[in-house]
Amino acid sequence: MKKIYPLLWKSKVLFLLDQRALPEKKRYLACRTLKDVQKCIQRMIVRGAPALGVAAAFAMVLEARRAFDKLNSQGKGYSFTQLLKYLTLAGSILQQTRPTAVNLAWGIRRMLSKCLKLKGARPDAILSGLEQEALRIYREDVAINRKIGFYGASLIANGSRVLTHCNAGALATAGYGTALGVIRSAYSQGKITHVYTSETRPFLQGSRLTAWELQQEGIPFSIIVDSAAGYFMHQGEISCVIVGADRIAANGDVANKIGTYTLAVLARENNLPFYVAAPFSTIDLSLGCGQEIVVEERAPHEITAFRGKPLAPAGAQAKNPAFDITAGHLITALITEHGLLPAPQNGKLAQFVRQGGGTA
Amino acid sequence: MKKIYPLLWKSKVLFLLDQRALPEKKRYLACRTLKDVQKCIQRMIVRGAPALGVAAAFAMVLEARRAFDKLNSQGKGYSFTQLLKYLTLAGSILQQTRPTAVNLAWGIRRMLSKCLKLKGARPDAILSGLEQEALRIYREDVAINRKIGFYGASLIANGSRVLTHCNAGALATAGYGTALGVIRSAYSQGKITHVYTSETRPFLQGSRLTAWELQQEGIPFSIIVDSAAGYFMHQGEISCVIVGADRIAANGDVANKIGTYTLAVLARENNLPFYVAAPFSTIDLSLGCGQEIVVEERAPHEITAFRGKPLAPAGAQAKNPAFDITAGHLITALITEHGLLPAPQNGKLAQFVRQGGGTA
Repeated sequence: MKKIYPLLWKSKVLFLLDQRALPEKKRYLACRTLKDVQKCIQRMIVRGAPALGVAAAFAMVLEARRAFDKLNSQGKGYSFTQLLKYLTLAGSILQQTRPTAVNLAWGIRRMLSKCLKLKGARPDAILSGLEQEALRIYREDVAINRKIGFYGASLIANGSRVLTHCNAGALATAGYGTALGVIRSAYSQGKITHVYTSETRPFLQGSRLTAWELQQEGIPFSIIVDSAAGYFMHQGEISCVIVGADRIAANGDVANKIGTYTLAVLARENNLPFYVAAPFSTIDLSLGCGQEIVVEERAPHEITAFRGKPLAPAGAQAKNPAFDITAGHLITALITEHGLLPAPQNGKLAQFVRQGGGTA
Repeated sequence: MKKIYPLLWKSKVLFLLDQRALPEKKRYLACRTLKDVQKCIQRMIVRGAPALGVAAAFAMVLEARRAFDKLNSQGKGYSFTQLLKYLTLAGSILQQTRPTAVNLAWGIRRMLSKCLKLKGARPDAILSGLEQEALRIYREDVAINRKIGFYGASLIANGSRVLTHCNAGALATAGYGTALGVIRSAYSQGKITHVYTSETRPFLQGSRLTAWELQQEGIPFSIIVDSAAGYFMHQGEISCVIVGADRIAANGDVANKIGTYTLAVLARENNLPFYVAAPFSTIDLSLGCGQEIVVEERAPHEITAFRGKPLAPAGAQAKNPAFDITAGHLITALITEHGLLPAPQNGKLAQFVRQGGGTA
């Protein structure tokens, strides 16, 4: 596979591949502070639940450095309590940037607990420890995706034509991808003959990002409008659906890109398997069900304009929920780095997580 | 209501409101020959099943005039057989411009049978007779839409939030609209509090045309991406769905804009009524079922580019079916100018048409 790096950590600076400019331009933006990262998340320069978790981890390293610089400039010297206060506050602000994907909170939490473990260490050791932890999260994410790909490929029959939605690929993670990782893995095993990628309005993650990744890999694909998925399922053109996830509640309900619920209903109607590929870090057992998940509403202009050009009459209203909730009973199997969970409902998910997975 | 004229017949010329330029620009293009009309249909300057029927009728008037001019210039004088041959050939070419909407064929057929009735008349009488017939089709279409609106409004409960797809409005007809005619009528009765219009990729008939019509009328509305319809249904935000149709087979299967099938499945899943509003001219009893309907595939660049700007990587493939088929059993009721037909399946539709409708 051609390596795709949505995030790069170089000379203590986080470089983010600008996903608004793809596929036309491949440019990186440098983030030197947590605020820089936050702006990039808001503007969708970096997106995708796992990638947000990794970006958050590096943002915390940048914030720790800023905190030390600030304390030094105030002549106060180093205070661990002060540092932790700074980091906790910055983390809680960062977390609210995009409320639906749980990985943002997960990445921040993991960095805060690492910080706690470094209590008593010298500033440079703390900074270095946090940097190592962020790099570990980064590397782990790629390894996790490869495992998801491995387990997921076992579900794909020979000669499959797979539909995916949005971009749950290398660009949505530290590399390789969740749903697209499964596709990569199954394709390398010769199981997939064609991929359908829905364009995924309004941000066009499908036609811009997933299509770009598939093209890089030489995997044959067709872009379709979101509303054509049902047509192709009904025509017998699609063998199964694989999507990623932004948050999974304890009962197996899945928050993912708007349109996912629709694909799950259509898959059920057409007797097709519907798979969700996501790491354990996306599972949020603190929420009982999908109704408790906050669905982010984004700006109407994402729908009513495209690159500054109007797509609707001036003054037209639009409603732009970025995610929807798919009930666990519509999911054929959950694909994780710790194995597969068929029909993740009726309390099965919590048990699966507690026992550390399995290939049930 | 503010009058919207998608077609105007002035000084023996057909003027078509350019629906590609709306809502930004309101400009008319003049058609002086059948070929002009054909180009406008191909380029989606005029679209919508009933509007295509009316445009085809005027195209036949233009073609008859051209035929007389040609025969005269060849010094052959007038021959009815020759004229009919010209018109039949031109009609059959025009009919293939867009294969799914039956109204194109219907308009042409009606003009050809009018022509047959004029056999033996002088050229100016034939031309005038054909022109009168096209104008009759035009006026009838508006009257039919108003009747559809009247019958359809009886199905809408007070306080309804209605979802519609694509544009089955004044712009898709000679005026008033089918699905949007029902919405206009029910709104004027105070029954509708809000309209959701799906943007309808790739041509954006929803966000460009339906939104524009609703704005002209002062009807409160929100544009949503096509894939958000399921989310809003599940949230209890939508009371019912109303769409138009491009062709209806004898068993009640409906061809309509891509995405219609998906909305019907979602409506069933969420126990919501799903209504199809269409004139009798859209019913094609010559086809047993929806599978016999030819679904037009349009150019991939409609999906991969927007106004010349790429939306996908260079060389990316796309599949662009313009319509899909919704099974009759998913339709709560068919709304026609001759009354309502609940659940148009199991041979009920053919009987309904034979008896000239009814409010069964």
